[in-house]
Amino acid sequence: MKTYFDCIPCFIHQALKAVRLLTNDESVQEDVMRQILHLADNLDLSASPPAMGREIHRVIREITGNSDPFKSIKEQSNQIALKYYPLLKERIEQSDDPFVTAVRVAIAGNIIDFAKLDRLDEAIIQKAINDSFTAHLSRDELNAFRRNITQAQNILYLGDNAGEIVFDRLLIEQMPVAKIIYAVRGYPVINDVTRQDAVVAGLADMVEIIDSGADVPGTILETCSVEFQERFKKADLIVAKGQGNYETLNDVAQNIYFLLKVKCPVVAADTQSDVGALVLQKAVPRELSQGVAS
Amino acid sequence: MKTYFDCIPCFIHQALKAVRLLTNDESVQEDVMRQILHLADNLDLSASPPAMGREIHRVIREITGNSDPFKSIKEQSNQIALKYYPLLKERIEQSDDPFVTAVRVAIAGNIIDFAKLDRLDEAIIQKAINDSFTAHLSRDELNAFRRNITQAQNILYLGDNAGEIVFDRLLIEQMPVAKIIYAVRGYPVINDVTRQDAVVAGLADMVEIIDSGADVPGTILETCSVEFQERFKKADLIVAKGQGNYETLNDVAQNIYFLLKVKCPVVAADTQSDVGALVLQKAVPRELSQGVAS
Repeated sequence: MKTYFDCIPCFIHQALKAVRLLTNDESVQEDVMRQILHLADNLDLSASPPAMGREIHRVIREITGNSDPFKSIKEQSNQIALKYYPLLKERIEQSDDPFVTAVRVAIAGNIIDFAKLDRLDEAIIQKAINDSFTAHLSRDELNAFRRNITQAQNILYLGDNAGEIVFDRLLIEQMPVAKIIYAVRGYPVINDVTRQDAVVAGLADMVEIIDSGADVPGTILETCSVEFQERFKKADLIVAKGQGNYETLNDVAQNIYFLLKVKCPVVAADTQSDVGALVLQKAVPRELSQGVAS
Repeated sequence: MKTYFDCIPCFIHQALKAVRLLTNDESVQEDVMRQILHLADNLDLSASPPAMGREIHRVIREITGNSDPFKSIKEQSNQIALKYYPLLKERIEQSDDPFVTAVRVAIAGNIIDFAKLDRLDEAIIQKAINDSFTAHLSRDELNAFRRNITQAQNILYLGDNAGEIVFDRLLIEQMPVAKIIYAVRGYPVINDVTRQDAVVAGLADMVEIIDSGADVPGTILETCSVEFQERFKKADLIVAKGQGNYETLNDVAQNIYFLLKVKCPVVAADTQSDVGALVLQKAVPRELSQGVAS
């Protein structure tokens, strides 16, 4: 997905939020923001929004010397999610269709996204969970997704955020774990998952964890390690969580299912849904969506 | 008031909204937005936010050739407000303290601000009116404001937005009209009041109308006509409506009362109130607020 001018207010807001977590020094804040505005002035709209996300957090790292502004928020998010885990596990197992309920819960967890959220508020997470049980999800897509999981031999599950990863675990527990590799980011960026979160969430004991090798809050394949790229190519099903993975992979010609909660009008338009909606959607590679190969 | 980095997302959003009202041509939209981002990259934070507002709308005028993107919205706003006028007039006159009720209504009208609003929604206006009757307003400030009006000989009332001007009329009807001059902007900018709105609102028949001579969505004195500046200096009471006038005049050493509905966290912090609050506040000139002359 390309970047829209509508994304720029979010970029600025995201950068301000991150730098304010690190310092009250207004001259440092101004140094960061001046560089972000300079980047925005020279923005490549054909790149996906997470490409700019990467640049923003590189600037913040370089100027402040701190590589992980959301460290504490990530830790708290995991703890909150782990607190919900037993209740949600029970609810999933007692539901008529545990797989579908787990899909809903995993998508609900995508609310914990500090590209958009301003503060960690349990009420927001609780609301997202409650809403997810009754929100619209296409029955056909759910069936197709379930069929894909059954048929796949190599499933690559691309995580998105800390906290959310505990909700991913609940879904993965309803999937054939032996076939699953879970991918985290290569470096801290916003509140995206890293290897440490997979350990805390208990996922590292269940499935193989790999990292993208990149500092992108999404999956821009050419920035990823060769090893990750090989694993990606080898996967016959990719489960991609969150807006960042959607924005960077939505036109990639591979068997990808996106699971995300829509958090902005740009992604709402692109997924033909509404802000707040749950999305379970298969990737439509660019050449197909343009009808060339149809 | 200076400009904060928090203002920049609003600037971008404001520009996008205006240019999209004028054209669907994405190359024109991009030309405008590229120039706005370039302005943001070179932003003078010591200037007030309406200084950037002026630059944004200059760029839009130059590139699109259209000087009034909000023309239709302004006309509709006036018509909606005129529809409410008789009911509000009756409510004011039947209230225990018509002056105070009129102050509340005039501040409620400040919701019609397309620097912030995305669409004209009567429900939003209706809610602002309803809320205003019970919202907090300092009794001391109200008394002081009333005393100032009684004692003043030359009252300059600085309007803010179309539609809102009808609500201003309701307050002006509770004031000594012979002493009042009502000021509009010199040129169209966002949905700010111009002479035409004063005519439609019926104010032009009641009080003298002057214009600022400037294309600023606020009152930056050095950009105003000499005539306006003289009228401003001569006024022994200035009633300044809205955030734009607040942001540009809050540290000017004259007898100014600001009446506004707080619409963003930056102005909330500066007025020590909350987003959504009604503000009736006297200007505190910079030298006083810094304690030099205290």
